[in-house]
Formats: sequence, C-alpha cells, structure tokens
Amino acid sequence: MKTRTESDFIGTKEIPADALYGIHTARALENFNLTGRPVNRELVKAYGWVKLACAQINRELGYFKDDEKAGAIERACHEMASGFLADWVLVDALQGGAGTSTNMNVNEVIANRALQILEKEPGNYDAISPLDDINLHQSTNDTYPTALKLAAIFLLRKLEQAVLGLQEAFQQKEKEFAHIVKIGRTQLQDAVLTTLGREMAAYAEAFNRDRWRIYKCEERLRVINLGGTAIGSGLGAPRQFIFRATDRLRELTNTSLARAENLMENTQNADVFVEVSGILKACATNLIKVSNDLRLLSSGPDAGFGEINLPPVQAGSSIMPGKVNPVIPETVIQASMQVISNDQLITQAAMSGNLELNPFLPAIADALLASLQLLENAASALHHKCVKGMTANTDKCREHVLGSTAIITALIAKLGYETCSQLAREAKNQQKTIRSVVLEKELMSKTEFDALILPETVNKLGF
Amino acid sequence: MKTRTESDFIGTKEIPADALYGIHTARALENFNLTGRPVNRELVKAYGWVKLACAQINRELGYFKDDEKAGAIERACHEMASGFLADWVLVDALQGGAGTSTNMNVNEVIANRALQILEKEPGNYDAISPLDDINLHQSTNDTYPTALKLAAIFLLRKLEQAVLGLQEAFQQKEKEFAHIVKIGRTQLQDAVLTTLGREMAAYAEAFNRDRWRIYKCEERLRVINLGGTAIGSGLGAPRQFIFRATDRLRELTNTSLARAENLMENTQNADVFVEVSGILKACATNLIKVSNDLRLLSSGPDAGFGEINLPPVQAGSSIMPGKVNPVIPETVIQASMQVISNDQLITQAAMSGNLELNPFLPAIADALLASLQLLENAASALHHKCVKGMTANTDKCREHVLGSTAIITALIAKLGYETCSQLAREAKNQQKTIRSVVLEKELMSKTEFDALILPETVNKLGF
Amino acid sequence: MKTRTESDFIGTKEIPADALYGIHTARALENFNLTGRPVNRELVKAYGWVKLACAQINRELGYFKDDEKAGAIERACHEMASGFLADWVLVDALQGGAGTSTNMNVNEVIANRALQILEKEPGNYDAISPLDDINLHQSTNDTYPTALKLAAIFLLRKLEQAVLGLQEAFQQKEKEFAHIVKIGRTQLQDAVLTTLGREMAAYAEAFNRDRWRIYKCEERLRVINLGGTAIGSGLGAPRQFIFRATDRLRELTNTSLARAENLMENTQNADVFVEVSGILKACATNLIKVSNDLRLLSSGPDAGFGEINLPPVQAGSSIMPGKVNPVIPETVIQASMQVISNDQLITQAAMSGNLELNPFLPAIADALLASLQLLENAASALHHKCVKGMTANTDKCREHVLGSTAIITALIAKLGYETCSQLAREAKNQQKTIRSVVLEKELMSKTEFDALILPETVNKLGF
Amino acid sequence: MKTRTESDFIGTKEIPADALYGIHTARALENFNLTGRPVNRELVKAYGWVKLACAQINRELGYFKDDEKAGAIERACHEMASGFLADWVLVDALQGGAGTSTNMNVNEVIANRALQILEKEPGNYDAISPLDDINLHQSTNDTYPTALKLAAIFLLRKLEQAVLGLQEAFQQKEKEFAHIVKIGRTQLQDAVLTTLGREMAAYAEAFNRDRWRIYKCEERLRVINLGGTAIGSGLGAPRQFIFRATDRLRELTNTSLARAENLMENTQNADVFVEVSGILKACATNLIKVSNDLRLLSSGPDAGFGEINLPPVQAGSSIMPGKVNPVIPETVIQASMQVISNDQLITQAAMSGNLELNPFLPAIADALLASLQLLENAASALHHKCVKGMTANTDKCREHVLGSTAIITALIAKLGYETCSQLAREAKNQQKTIRSVVLEKELMSKTEFDALILPETVNKLGF
Repeated sequence: MKTRTESDFIGTKEIPADALYGIHTARALENFNLTGRPVNRELVKAYGWVKLACAQINRELGYFKDDEKAGAIERACHEMASGFLADWVLVDALQGGAGTSTNMNVNEVIANRALQILEKEPGNYDAISPLDDINLHQSTNDTYPTALKLAAIFLLRKLEQAVLGLQEAFQQKEKEFAHIVKIGRTQLQDAVLTTLGREMAAYAEAFNRDRWRIYKCEERLRVINLGGTAIGSGLGAPRQFIFRATDRLRELTNTSLARAENLMENTQNADVFVEVSGILKACATNLIKVSNDLRLLSSGPDAGFGEINLPPVQAGSSIMPGKVNPVIPETVIQASMQVISNDQLITQAAMSGNLELNPFLPAIADALLASLQLLENAASALHHKCVKGMTANTDKCREHVLGSTAIITALIAKLGYETCSQLAREAKNQQKTIRSVVLEKELMSKTEFDALILPETVNKLGF
Repeated sequence: MKTRTESDFIGTKEIPADALYGIHTARALENFNLTGRPVNRELVKAYGWVKLACAQINRELGYFKDDEKAGAIERACHEMASGFLADWVLVDALQGGAGTSTNMNVNEVIANRALQILEKEPGNYDAISPLDDINLHQSTNDTYPTALKLAAIFLLRKLEQAVLGLQEAFQQKEKEFAHIVKIGRTQLQDAVLTTLGREMAAYAEAFNRDRWRIYKCEERLRVINLGGTAIGSGLGAPRQFIFRATDRLRELTNTSLARAENLMENTQNADVFVEVSGILKACATNLIKVSNDLRLLSSGPDAGFGEINLPPVQAGSSIMPGKVNPVIPETVIQASMQVISNDQLITQAAMSGNLELNPFLPAIADALLASLQLLENAASALHHKCVKGMTANTDKCREHVLGSTAIITALIAKLGYETCSQLAREAKNQQKTIRSVVLEKELMSKTEFDALILPETVNKLGF
Repeated sequence: MKTRTESDFIGTKEIPADALYGIHTARALENFNLTGRPVNRELVKAYGWVKLACAQINRELGYFKDDEKAGAIERACHEMASGFLADWVLVDALQGGAGTSTNMNVNEVIANRALQILEKEPGNYDAISPLDDINLHQSTNDTYPTALKLAAIFLLRKLEQAVLGLQEAFQQKEKEFAHIVKIGRTQLQDAVLTTLGREMAAYAEAFNRDRWRIYKCEERLRVINLGGTAIGSGLGAPRQFIFRATDRLRELTNTSLARAENLMENTQNADVFVEVSGILKACATNLIKVSNDLRLLSSGPDAGFGEINLPPVQAGSSIMPGKVNPVIPETVIQASMQVISNDQLITQAAMSGNLELNPFLPAIADALLASLQLLENAASALHHKCVKGMTANTDKCREHVLGSTAIITALIAKLGYETCSQLAREAKNQQKTIRSVVLEKELMSKTEFDALILPETVNKLGF
Repeated sequence: MKTRTESDFIGTKEIPADALYGIHTARALENFNLTGRPVNRELVKAYGWVKLACAQINRELGYFKDDEKAGAIERACHEMASGFLADWVLVDALQGGAGTSTNMNVNEVIANRALQILEKEPGNYDAISPLDDINLHQSTNDTYPTALKLAAIFLLRKLEQAVLGLQEAFQQKEKEFAHIVKIGRTQLQDAVLTTLGREMAAYAEAFNRDRWRIYKCEERLRVINLGGTAIGSGLGAPRQFIFRATDRLRELTNTSLARAENLMENTQNADVFVEVSGILKACATNLIKVSNDLRLLSSGPDAGFGEINLPPVQAGSSIMPGKVNPVIPETVIQASMQVISNDQLITQAAMSGNLELNPFLPAIADALLASLQLLENAASALHHKCVKGMTANTDKCREHVLGSTAIITALIAKLGYETCSQLAREAKNQQKTIRSVVLEKELMSKTEFDALILPETVNKLGF
C-alpha cells in the first residue's frame, strides 16, 4: 500500500496515500476502538455546515488570501454537509477527548478534499492546513456541541413528521372503529363500556402531545457556543468572527440558532441534552404503552383478547402453521427501551462534566442521535407496517360485551346499584349473559337493553 | 382497645373505635406493607382540595340535601387540604390498585371527620358515607391523578423559589470573585485563563435555565381528568358536575388547571410525569456537576486545587485535627442521584400502563413528589449551608496562574505560537515560571506581562 | 426545654438535656435535611454489634481501665444491637460525609446511654467519651461499611426465607394444577399445549434460582475492613485490635465475616454492593415477570384470559360491583421497580468514589437495605396474599384448548403438517372447533383425540 | 439484478439470485430497520455451532438419508461457526419476534451455502430446506437463547484475559511506585499518608475481584434449553435428539454447557442475563472509579494534583501547545457508562417477558454482547494505552507530603494530639511547612522526622 508521512507533536505516522484523513485520525483509530462504530453520519453532515459557516466568515474577514483556496474549502465543506465525505470520518463513536478526534477527522477530510479539488496531493498541508485553515478561529469545544445541536435539530424535524404520521394513522382508525362497542379494562380487569374508536383516539392524542413536545424541542437546542473556542471566552478568535459565525450558520441551515449570551456556561454544561432526551423518553414511554396495548388487544387470537388483528408481516413459527406474531410492536418496544437506556447514558455523561468542559460529549452525541433515529424508525414502522393494516374483530368485541358482567355498569343508572349487583351474581351462577337474565326477568325490553350498548350511548360524556 | 365493626363486600373487620379511617384503609394496611412509609403528605393535602371542589359542586347541584352535613364535609375537606388530617392517611406509598386505597383512605377520613364535626360517631356511614357522599360522582382514576398533579404544581412553585435562591447566591459570588484571575481547566487539565467570578456566573446561568424550565412545568401538569370517573367517559357523573368541578378546583387553588379535551386519554397515560421528571433530572444533573466542581475547587486544601474554601459545617474526622469535608455538596449529589433514579422508576411505571389505566400511579406519585422535595431541599442546603459562606483562596489562584504553563495561551497573540511553545519547554526544563523566563529574556516588561493577566483582559470576548 | 451545652471545633450548641445524642448529631440534623427519613433501623442495629465487638476488644487489650465503665459501654452497645436505641439515631438517610454523621450519632448515643447506665448525666464526656471511648481505634471509614455489610447479611437471610416461602407456594400450586391442560402462549399468541401445573413449576424454579443466588450473596459481603481506620492503613489502631476485632464481630453475630487482605482497597471500593444489588435486581425481574403473568392469566375475568382467579383482598371499585383487581401483583411490581431503580442509584454512587474513599456510601446503604426489605415484603405478600389463595378456572382453560387452533400442534405428529394446516383453515372458516372438524371427518375417534390433550401427553418430553 | 423467486405463507418475493439468504430474511430486512446494525457477529458464529451440533445429531439419528447432503450442511455450519458467513446474516439487531428472524436468516444462509457446496443453486429448497433440514427438531425459542449463552461464554473468556492484563499492569506499577510516599485523600481532602504503590495495589485488587467474578459467570450461563423447541416441552423433537444435542454442543465448543432440568422455565425467563450483566456492571463501576482516579491524579499538570503522568497518545488541543488530555480514561469511562445503560436495557427487556417466552431477547443479546466487547476493549485500552506507560511525578508527591498539614497525622503517635493540633495551626498561620516548624522547635531531629515519612513506616499496618 502506498503511504504518505504525516507528523504531529508525538511523532510521525504513515497514512494511506490517498486517504482523505490524516495523522490525528490515524492516531484516534488506534486509541479508540471501543464500539467498532464510527460517529453518527448526521453529526458529520452537521459538522460540514458548521465548517462551511466558519470558512465563509473567515473568507469574508479576509483570512483566506487566496480565493481559489477558499472556494475549494467551501466546496469541500458543502460536500461534507451533503453526506458525500462521511465515509472518511471513521473515528469511534465513544472516543475520549470531548470530540477532538471527530473535529480533527473532519478538519483533515475537508482539507484533503479541498486539496483534491485544487488537484493537489492529500497531506500537502502547507497549501491547506486542517488546523490553520479549516479549524481557524475554532475549537472542538465550540464546534462539536454546535454540530451536535444542529444534527439533533435536523433529526427532530424528521421525527416530528414520523410521529405525525403515526398520529394520523390512529385518527384514521378512530373513524374506522367508531361504531365498535367494547369492554374497557382497568388493571386488566373488565371495567366499563367504550368503543374501539375511542381507544384509537386516545393513542392519537398521546402522539399528538409527543409531536408537540418534539416540535418545541428545537427551542432547547438553538442556543450555541460557536465562537467561544476552548472555554467560551473566545480566546484566539476575532470578535467579528464570533459575532457573525452563528448568524451565518443559521442562514445556511434554515434554523433558529442563536449565540449564547454566556458562552462559557454554554460550553461547559450539557443539561439541555438531558432535557431533550427526557422528552424523547416520554415519546418512548407512549410507544411502549401503545405497543403493549396492541399486543394485548391482538392476543390470542382464540385464547386471548382477540379484539383486533395486526397485519401479518412475516411467518411467526416453524412449528405452528399460520401463527402470526406482533413483531412490529415488539421491535418498537425494543427500540423504545433502547431510547430509555440511552437517556440514562446521556444523563450520566452530562452530570459527569467538570469545570470548563464536559469530556463525555461523544457519548451524549452517540446516544442522543441514535435515540432520535430509533424513534423515527419505530414510529414509522408502527405506522406503516402495523397500524395502517390493522383490522377490528367486531364479533369478538360484541361477544365480550355481552358475555361480561362489566356490562352491568351500563345498567346501573336504569336499574339501580342493588338490582345490578344481584343480576351480576345470578348471571355468574347460572352461567348466562347479563342480557339474557335481564330479558328473562323482563327488566327491560330488547330495544331498551340494546340502546344502552349503542356507540352513541357509550360515548356520551356523563349523564 | 375499643373497636367498631365495619363491613365491605369481603366481610367485616374491627376498627379502633376512634380511628378516622375505616375498613378499606384497614384492609390496605394489611395488604400493602412494602415500604413502611405512608403516601406523601403533599398528596394528601392536594386530595383535600380535590374533595373540597367536588363537595362544593355536589352541594350546588343539590346532591347534598342537608346543609349542615354539606358544611361538615366541606370543613373536613378543608382541614385535610390544610394538612391537619394527614396523620390518618396511613396507606403504604407503594400500594397496588392505582391509588384506590389512597382515595378510600381519604374518603373515610373526611367522612369520619365530618361525622366528628357533627358530633356523631365515626363509622356512622348512614349519616355520611365515604363512598356515596365523599366519593360522589368521582373515581380513584380521576381524583388520584388530579390530586397528584395539584401536589406537584404546589411543590414545583416551592422548588422554583429554592432554585432562584441558589442562582442569586451564585450571582452574589460572581460579583465577589470578579477580580480573581485563575486557570480554567478542560478535561481536568490546565487550559486557559478565566476568573473565579465567571465560573460562578456559569453556575448561576445553569440554575437560571433550571428555574425557567421548572417554571414552565406547571403547563405540563395543568390538564386534568376530573369528572372522567373510571375510564374518562364520565360514567356515573352528571354532566354539570363534569363541567364545573375542574373550574372550582382551579379557583380554590389559584392554579391554571384545565379539563382535558380527551378525558379517556388523560386517564390512561402517564407520560406527562415522565416529561416533568425528565426536567427535574436536568436540574439534578446541574446540581451534581456544580457540586462536583465545588468539591474539586476546594480539594486539598494543600495537596489539591484549593482555590475556594467551603464553610465548615461540622467536624470532618476524629483522626485528622481540623479536617473539613465538603459534606453539603456530597449530600446534594446524593439527593440528585436519588432524583435520577426516581426518574427511572417513573419511566418504568409510566410505560407499564395498560389499556384504559395505569395501575402504577402510586409509584409515580411517590417518586415524583419525593424528587420535587429532594431538589428543593438540596438547592436550599447548597445555597444556605455552602455557597453563601464560600470564600476564595486568592493566593492559590494566583500561584496557579503564575506556576502553570497554561498562562502561555495568553501570550500567543503577543509573541506568536512558536515562541510560546519554546517558552513553555524552557520553563518546564528549568523549573521556572513562564513569567520569570519572559522577563529574563526581556520579551515583555513586567507591566506588559501583568496586563495580560488582568481580569479585564482575561474576560474580554475574542480579540 | 432544658438543655445542656456541648462543643466541638466549630463552636458550642445547646442540646435537649435528656437527649442521648450530642452536638455532632445536632449539627448533622441541621445540615442534612434531605429526605426526612432517618438512616435504616437495621443499619443502626448492625452498628451496635460493630461497636460492641470493638468495645470488647478494647477492654481486653486494657484500654478501658474501669471495668464498670466498660460494662456500661458494652451494655449500651448491646441495647443498640437489639434495636432499643434506634429512636435516637436520627440523622438523615442521605447525609454527606461518607457516614460520619451516622457513626457520630451512634457514638454519642452509646456514650450517653452508658452514662445513663452509670447514673451519670448525658453529656458528661469526661466520664465516657463518644470519640475517645466509643470510637476508640475506629473510623467512620471502617465501621460504617462494616455495619452496612452486616446489616445486609442479616436482611439477606430474611429475604432468602421469604423467597423460599414463595417458591414452595408455587410448588404447592404445581401439584394442585398438574392436571389442568391449557394453551401455552408465546409472544402473547396461542402456541402449544401445556398444563397450568407446569406454568407454576416454572415460577417455582425461577424463585429457586433466586433463592440460591441470594444465599450465595453472603460470600460477597463477608470481607470487611474493620481495623483499617481512615484509609485502610490502620493508622492510629494497635495491631492487636486490628487482628482481633473482625474475629470478635464474626463470633458475636454468627456470620462468616473475614478481614480483607487489602484493607485499603476494601475501604475505597463499593463494587460489591453493585454486585449484590445486581443479584437483587435479578430477583426483582422475576417478581415482575411472574406478577405480570398472574395479572394476564387472571385478566378478564370474562373478556380476558381468565384462567386463574386471584383471591380478592379488598374492594376494587366504587363504580363496578364486585370488581376485583390484582392489587397484590401490582404492589409487588412497584416494589420491584423500586429495587431496579435503587440499583441504578447504588451503581451511580459506587462509580463516583474517589481515591481512598467513597463519600456516597450513605446513599448506597439507604438503597441497598431498602431493596432487601422491599423484596422480602414483596415476596411475602405475593406468597401469603396472592399465590396461596389462587384458584384455577379449569373450564376456561379447557374452553381455550378446544376453541383454539393452537391445539393443532398436538395433532401434527398423528395427521401430518399439511392435513393440520387445512384443518386449521376449515375450523376458522366454519367457526367450528378443531375437535368437531376432526370428529366430523372421522380423522380420529373421540378417544384418540382426547388422549392427545391429556396432561400426561402434553407433559411428555419430545416424542 | 438477477433474482430468484421465493415464497412463504404470506406470498412470494424476489431475492437477489446469488444471495445466500432467503425470503424470511428479506421480509425481516423490510420489517426491521431500527438500528441499521446487524445482529452481533459473535452471535452468528455461536449459532453456527448450535446448528452444527443439531445437524450432527440429526444425521446420527438417521434423519438425513443422504450423506453428501449431511456433509454439506455440516460444512456450512462449520463455516458459519468460523465467521465466514457472517456477512449474510443481515437482520437488524433490534428485531421483533424473539429472534425468529435471526434463526431464519441463519437457516437460510446455511441451507444456501450447503447447496453451493453441492454445486446447486441457492433457493433449491427441495434439495436442502432451511426449515425442514437446518431447523429440524429445533425452534427459535431454544436455539436462539442457546446461541446467545454460548456467544456470551466465549466473550467472557476473552474479557477475563483483558481484565487479567489490566490487573497485572497495575501490579507492575505497584512495585514500580512502592517507594513513593504521598498524601492519601478522603472526600478529595488531604487525609493521611500512603504510597503511590499501594494506590496501584488497590486498583489491581479491584480488578482481581472483577476477574474472579467474570470467571464465575460461565456457571450462570451454562444451563441451556436446546431441545425444548417452542416452549420447552420438546414438542416435535425426538427424545434422543433432546438428550444428545446439548452434549454434542458442549463437546464441540469445549464448554460446560448442560441441559436445563426444567426446560420450560429455562425457555421463558431471562434473569440469568440480568445477573451476568449486573456483574459486568460491577466491573464497569471499577473501571469508572479507577479511570476517574487517574484523571484526578494526573490533573494539572501544574494547577492540579499532578502526581502521575499519563502517556500522551494524541495531541490534545489546537490552542494550547503541548496540552495532553486523559483521553484513554475518558473513553474507558464512556464505554463503561454504556455498559451500565445496557444493563438497564437488559433488565427492562428481561422483566418484560410474558408467559412461555420473552419476545425481547434480541435486545438482550444486542446489549449483553456489546457490553462484553466494550469492557474487553476498554480494559485492554486502559492497560496498553495508559497504565503501561504511566509514570510517577515523585517530586510533586513529596512536595504535597511536606506542604500539607495532613502529614500531622503521622506525628500524633509521637507528639500527641494536642501538640499536633497546635503545630497545624502554627504552620498554617506562618505559611511554613510542618516539617520546618517541628525542626525549628526541636521537637524532633531531621532523622526522626524523615523516618516518619518513609514508605516502610507509612505502609505499616496499625501500631
């Protein structure tokens, strides 16, 4: 393999001749070999935007004398922002160093890609330097959290769409199942009547709240410390750069980013990621609750609740012909559990910052972006692979209504508590339905009885 | 011991004759003996308000024929809301049954207290009934979460004040320490100069964000399901009651409570508690981070950082004369860790709801209210027992500045990167300070050098 | 209120004249007001044993000149070990200072109680000193973790008994339900036949494994650092004391305690508590899984699985006559969730130790001992209040077996996969049971068919 | 792209013509797209061994008539066990279905690879069938947990070696630093004297305990349910197969695997994974504690503790010349935090099993195997990249000893507590070292004083 030699203050190192990364990346690859996964691709893309904004401002402030060079750098940044260079950002997701290796890897790839654009050799850092040009007036400690927030904002927007889709799918089912009266259950025990439509409406409403919360999350992430350099004091950066970089990044990305008033504070604390992750966790909670409900309602199909049917998406068993398992809710639950445990990781990492910096941002970035993607994928799978094709088992619902003593609660207003208690006991003892006992005893007519279990009656608020 | 006999559908039971609780409580005490702790006192008080609102509306709607009786009930509710009857609400914090036992205990105590007020015997439920009067038009499933949200709102307001106090204490220190230049550290390594005042400002800002988030939490809890009864359909409650109970509760408690549009959804899902707990967890994160910083900055005092002194609040050691330990930050950290693990409990409980109800609300209530109180106590202790009396060790800060090669970053703008690197090496090799090497070499005058480490210089944003 | 004056290096303080605690406790009560709960009573009792062992050895080594004094001290220690003095150990569960306040509180109470025994005034520390006598040759840093381990061992033994009881209760049900054939479910979907007895056997076996693990836990806690004093170097303690104190404690408590070979290591690390808590968490996992199974199997009773009946222990609802909820499983689940979140707290606290000490042992002690007690109470409640009185719903089990296409798997060996698949489809389409289709088609005789669903057939391993 | 057509009970699907996977995998790839990561490679290899054992027994029992076919199957299994076919096992790590898709993917790849070996086309399932041949007498529900346990055992052995290496590295440093007296710190405050060697010894001992625990873990995983098929009743498998498959797997893999006595129980419960993960978490706890100690001890280097130097492995900062950060401890901490949050996921998944199966095993597998690999990588990185090259800063240690009033505790035995207290105050007030005050006052000779801070004195146990 052809190599080129690069050096840093520790020594020299051979780099594959055509690699777009450099010595800092090479060292990081040796030092950090924890997960075998590189940093999240979305973080790399967001980093491309950050570097582009910085490069543009540096050019406008006159720091790049050579326009061709500046153009090449900007083009390379743009390519990274578009996802084209992600394959060269290889450093491990759980790297030490507060993200330094990611920043270095990004700097090296942009520099070498810009050299390529200028038809120069990778590694020719006298022409374009990863540190003196691409990282100019920047530090890991301001660019890394900025890129992370930007990546999170992009993913939040996609997540919002996925949750909205799920909400609408349940609203569709709300209409579709509006007429199906069924037993409502509390503590898994038969309780009072409701409709399958209203159950769907409740799910839709829960995801509506999630959608709103996710939408509001951008506010929590928009305040950034770009320009703060090492500890937020802006050391080494010209004031004009500090004032303009955030504005440029906001314009380039069509977001609402704003420069923190207290840059030092913004550099050292990671509690906003805890806050956002906490909100994602609330969404995970709802996904688990609803998925478990779907598993319960479709349980059986014969010896279970069996009130709905989930669309079969794959064979369930090699032993039982035709067994269909609720694999989509199961996968959604697992993804959501992962989001919940990611939240713990984010919290631990955030609380472990010291003084002017939190060295554990890479763990936060890895977990937070993964959570955002997991939720998006989970919401989307639940919507398209499960809820959309879900059907009601109307007969079973009606059978449950008529066969359960829970129907008695619908009669209390008419017959009084005492009569109803006695009816319940008689039905139980004689193994008859409440309806047949009521009709036998001529306590009501068929019409009267059946009116009590009409959807309109069941859905009426109070009396 | 004198007893009275009470009965329920399971059988009869002897109750201490003068006990204000009844058979349902007695059974719950036998059934649930998990923690040895009763339900949170604040929950009981909030329940008093809920019962008062319901009693008033029931009276106004004409459900209590007897004005004297209605008055006695309302007075008993008011006493509970004021905390006077809390000693009779004894059921275990981690009870099963979605809070039924708490509601029953509350109903029984209010009924018996009202009987007392009317100079009747406890247990005379023909006169005033726990179920038919105190629980009239209600269910555990609407009153319990309502009381929980109300209790949480009250505690959030107290917490906000405690966090504000802490923020102001740090702002006071910001001014007090504004002139003390010191080494800023990233990844625990000497980095660049800052001032002790700006470190305090960063802490103040973090708690300012917490305060704002806590203030906004009330919004998340204000939507309640009172009137929804068992599953949110309002079964068994008159429509007028449903429409008016929430308004009355809002007026009585001076809060912004509102009735949920979708009462069924509001009854079954607990994700708002996850959201609120997540925000409390962000506050816990900041408390831990700052407390650890205080521990680090006061470490030593001789063989550590030693830049600040925490006020001694108790003797630290029986072996080492005069050893003072950072016990307040240590206790704050532990309380915050508890809040973080409470968040896990709340999440687990919330995600485990099924269909029309979450049976694990008691665990959520126990953990959420405890978290609110722990944070209030922690913020208050940190403020009054620690930050307020904290002093700076100005000499040590200056010694660190002069003794550290980190000062070199302040010279780069003047002397260039290369010269500075060489200075750093020389100082290290000759075991001299940077300052003495610079002066020896006459690279700067004393005045010039010292100007670089003035607070004004250090605090300037960028160049 | 009459008071006495005590002093420490911070100043003086008025103490209630007859209080058995002293100034260090009084300060701790002011400083630590986090939870409102005192330290666990079992920790206090264990501390009594530790102090007794130390007092005895100190006496035998000649450090207490006065036999009467030594006797009074030993008697006071014994009283604490027996639980009589616990009401005076009032310091907050989440105290800072690595347990110093607990140790001080214990020292003061023993000293003052010994003074009482000698008919002297509390506070007369010239006669008996909390520090110079009761804490002689000791430190918080060795006595506190020692007491914690001892308390945990005592509670582990009680827990083991409770889990054994639960295991045996399920074994009883295994026999009782051995003949009841039922549908086994995977992923909540009807799968293949089994018996209710074998389901009970599986629960018994899971708790058998828990019992064994809990039994083995004592090994993990038996290595203690008594005699190590401040950091495990034994500074300030005579070698004879170090060598003999652990032996004495072992003899007094009938445990297998042993002195750590590396006392420094044992003083600073808390990973054994993480290990033990992890094992308790495994038990909590089983309790939750089994409790959820009981909730599922008893769900309905009409519109659910309804295969077992849990004994009613209290009224379930004020709206639905006769509704019985699975409140015991629900409370067991909540207690277990608490154990799981305690494990997180213990882990966080353990990983946060620094250098020669872990200052967060009080949080570990609070959570670990609570977990032990919660599990004991939960296992005991599940046993006595739920499993013991559980009955089978044989008819429903049989109805499920005959009504489910899952029975088909039992026919494959006889009729082949293809025929069975077709039978399943026919039964579904014609809304008949598999049995009736098989008999109609005369594919088997009644006797043959019924033999396939006999318990003996179903329970046979393989073919 | 050339394709072939495959079918299942849902319908048909085009598969890339030369793909070694089939329709079940293709459906799973569409259904589960959560993480973008395939199942762990080690799980696939272990699955290869499981399939090989089953294939051998099936052949020996006469189920494969054709020897050539049997040979091809066994060879394909062996290739999978050796890692050669892993690239074709593509299903998502967080799949629903209790691992069915992994089993199906494995079956299809082995079948198609065996067909290749026989020079037949992939997809020719009449010749070799994924279900009827490769999955013969098996179910996902017994092979998947078996493969998981086997993979975990293999990784545990590698982890044990890595932890042993780390332990030995610290033991090496124990010897190397044995003579360096230093300040021991409790609660980050200067406490009593110790040596740097003994600090290293404590770390070695902690990892020794981890190593032992990890070694003992194999016992917890060795009991498997192979042969139990769907729910542990062995339905569909011949008794001879059930009796022999586990023995064969044990022999093939050189492990201590044993068949569970209660196969149903072993199939449905996942608490052993919680137990093992809990033990890994204890190791993570130690890694975090020790890594934080290394960060503290190397903090500064000038304005911090500065007692040790970690080897520089990469440039730390683009702003501060020569800044070296503790990146290896930082990455170890992040990996360990990930292990801790994985433990939460494993616990949640394990407690969520229902009745005869836990559908969330894929999440457990993903997290458990990742934890094992993370810890191995972390221990190895800490050993080779950090501890091995660590050096002591002897001067700074001595400076701290002489400059700290903590040295006073070493004098108490000679001079008494009162004199020492006064010395401490004088030294503080006059800003002198304790040593100079002692010598000035002629309380000791130089020789006497210095003898008190010799390593031998400091390391002596008690007096």
